[in-house]
Amino acid sequence: MGDRKISVGLCGFGIVGQGVYDHLTRKRKLLGEQLGADIRVARVAVRDKSKKRDVEIDPSLITEDSLSVATDLEIDVVCELMGGTGLALEIVTRALVAGKIVVTANKALLCDHGKELLATAQEHGGHLLFEASVGGGIPVIKAIREGLIINDFSRIDGILNGTCNYILTRMANEGLSYQEILGEAKLLGYAEADESLDVDGIDAAHKAVVLAYLAYGKWTDLEEVRLDGITRVNQEDIRFAEDNGYAVKLIAFVERERQSKALYVSVLPVLVPKSSSLGSVDGVFNAISIHGDVVGETVYIGRGAGRHATSSAVISDIVDAVKLLIFGGPEGRFPFLDPAPKNGSELEIARPEEVHSRYYVRMRVDNRPGVMAEIASILASREVSLASVTQKEVGEDAERVSLIITTHMTTEKAIKETVNDLGNLDSVQGSPMTMPIRNFGEKSEDAWLES
Amino acid sequence: MGDRKISVGLCGFGIVGQGVYDHLTRKRKLLGEQLGADIRVARVAVRDKSKKRDVEIDPSLITEDSLSVATDLEIDVVCELMGGTGLALEIVTRALVAGKIVVTANKALLCDHGKELLATAQEHGGHLLFEASVGGGIPVIKAIREGLIINDFSRIDGILNGTCNYILTRMANEGLSYQEILGEAKLLGYAEADESLDVDGIDAAHKAVVLAYLAYGKWTDLEEVRLDGITRVNQEDIRFAEDNGYAVKLIAFVERERQSKALYVSVLPVLVPKSSSLGSVDGVFNAISIHGDVVGETVYIGRGAGRHATSSAVISDIVDAVKLLIFGGPEGRFPFLDPAPKNGSELEIARPEEVHSRYYVRMRVDNRPGVMAEIASILASREVSLASVTQKEVGEDAERVSLIITTHMTTEKAIKETVNDLGNLDSVQGSPMTMPIRNFGEKSEDAWLES
Repeated sequence: MGDRKISVGLCGFGIVGQGVYDHLTRKRKLLGEQLGADIRVARVAVRDKSKKRDVEIDPSLITEDSLSVATDLEIDVVCELMGGTGLALEIVTRALVAGKIVVTANKALLCDHGKELLATAQEHGGHLLFEASVGGGIPVIKAIREGLIINDFSRIDGILNGTCNYILTRMANEGLSYQEILGEAKLLGYAEADESLDVDGIDAAHKAVVLAYLAYGKWTDLEEVRLDGITRVNQEDIRFAEDNGYAVKLIAFVERERQSKALYVSVLPVLVPKSSSLGSVDGVFNAISIHGDVVGETVYIGRGAGRHATSSAVISDIVDAVKLLIFGGPEGRFPFLDPAPKNGSELEIARPEEVHSRYYVRMRVDNRPGVMAEIASILASREVSLASVTQKEVGEDAERVSLIITTHMTTEKAIKETVNDLGNLDSVQGSPMTMPIRNFGEKSEDAWLES
Repeated sequence: MGDRKISVGLCGFGIVGQGVYDHLTRKRKLLGEQLGADIRVARVAVRDKSKKRDVEIDPSLITEDSLSVATDLEIDVVCELMGGTGLALEIVTRALVAGKIVVTANKALLCDHGKELLATAQEHGGHLLFEASVGGGIPVIKAIREGLIINDFSRIDGILNGTCNYILTRMANEGLSYQEILGEAKLLGYAEADESLDVDGIDAAHKAVVLAYLAYGKWTDLEEVRLDGITRVNQEDIRFAEDNGYAVKLIAFVERERQSKALYVSVLPVLVPKSSSLGSVDGVFNAISIHGDVVGETVYIGRGAGRHATSSAVISDIVDAVKLLIFGGPEGRFPFLDPAPKNGSELEIARPEEVHSRYYVRMRVDNRPGVMAEIASILASREVSLASVTQKEVGEDAERVSLIITTHMTTEKAIKETVNDLGNLDSVQGSPMTMPIRNFGEKSEDAWLES
């Protein structure tokens, strides 16, 4: 196979770009021995040349012209690590049109433009690899695409945002409020200065869209994702969860509805059993639980972000790109393989009346006779069956109290209408907070024991 | 890429062989579309043609001559699914000598002959793939070889035997004895009629040897593995664990010692924190925790055995084999890539004085004055420092009592000598039962939170 030289161009030299450069450079010799190819970072595009970096790099490699890197004839593999969906889209498109193999960690770009980018790759004989876009350093995309290839997937559930999981974990462990933990997380660098991409669930939704594509071959619009963040989760929710054997987690569900077979993609705070595969994953860790029809459940846990974890995944894609380049056929290329060769592009998105779950509803209500009757009659009118009611004892003179109810199985449509009706009651203050309760099937109690 | 025809030969048609046949046949069309290749099971070697099978198969495919399948010029991929290290060794060797790609799930064979088989594959332009040999359906070998390729591994810890984990879990949940659960597990088919490969830790040791090879490139002799099974674990051990926040798990450790950098491979019952990544994995599930220098800890959980899970992994190897065959260079083949291209073949095996751990020791002692002093003085003479002593109150007339001690950090050498000395005391009945206590480093309490 000879000692072929492979040139990598990095577009973007922030946290991840510097990590990729650093690890690739430090292990260049070892990788070269393994692959019989010399992998060299040949050019690096940055936004501002004068900015100070953590890693040492030959200044002659650096340019501010990222497009020139994307289309450089000497570059074999282009890594888009700049983020965003503006310039990044142009870079990736140009590189694919030039027939290059492109590696990206950019889930927002994939979510918004994955379909067209893969078509571009196929048309021009290039490839688009994106292991680092979901689950950070966990090789979960490779698992879905290759390791579990014989499986059809009934469900993928994931904790896909480390910042949210970190905040929820500390809220549970320390009893502090969302705001207090968020402030600290920002200081520690676990949350961005503008936290909304994380805490509103948008980042996790981008990743859920990628997973749904890999599992079913369909690109879901972000607007079709049922989306709620963690900003309304409070200590009452956390305590209720704890008292009842649950944990509050921001969970992405990617699943086919049992009866209609429609596709359901959501990112919501959820009550999951503490002892379930996702309920016990705490801190900045991500976890993805994949249900395959042949293999059953497999679970993948690891750091979902950060320089090193993300670099590990980006470099695994670079190595796969190198294999494509040096081991390919006479043209030096593999044929294009659709990363999600499933026939699901025509899948319907599940309508609210097709989505079944138990639900948790917390609301602030007037402390006076008759309120519970009003609430119960609204539930009855929507045919939502009450499973439990919790109201902590307060003094008779308290003006308002917190009321938490849980329901038996109902539909997303029924709970939305119910919550809407409840919010319209004079005796209910503001809009109730609601979360699905997922027991992961009847066997939840001994999920690890089902055979 | 055309519609190339790929012929697979199955040697062995038991639980796994029938599963592979069944799933490959049912998804033949879909796989064909994905890969542009028609994968067909062309021949199946069985021990006894007359035996009844669960799956329907064209009788003309079946033969009792497995060697003829291994060397059949029409067969591209040979799957060795018969087990054992006798005929299986001959089958795999012959197929590799014939330049074929061989897929096996046989960890005993790999443990005993992996080194020579990989050399044979390399010499004759064949390949040996073995995803199903560790962790059943969990694609953990692909993760180590490809997804985590840039990482050096400081440690791999695993629950690698589902039968042992099932027994230990039920002992903990139901308070029943090892013997009672084992009997039931046999009835349920979770344990073999001859359970010793499982409960003595030998099966897990075979898998640990494969993991050690993948992580470090060194084949460890089975005799070099520190090995103990679960047959001596009793309810006293389980209760002690529970009372102190631990679980008893049969854990394989594959690690480099911090100071000497020597290789340590063990399969032992271990006290691990219940909240750690392995401590909460119950039932028939396997789990592998991998520490990479770049990615940090990643954990992989799933069914470690059974027809379907193992088939899922075998078929992922078959698909990789198909890619090697149809996408290869002019000779139709990839160059041979060492599955563990690490420079560790010269690694020394850690000596007992290099291995550090805390330990748990349970013994049955005479209920009379002076015994504790004898025991304490033996510990002192071996410089083993006592961390805790537990002796449940019994009547003054009880002849013997159970005594449980835990130690601070010491060496494997010191604890072995100590236990030996203790066993020689007249006041100690039989040989003490001992297990390592692993907190997984100082950060154990919030392992998920370390950043």
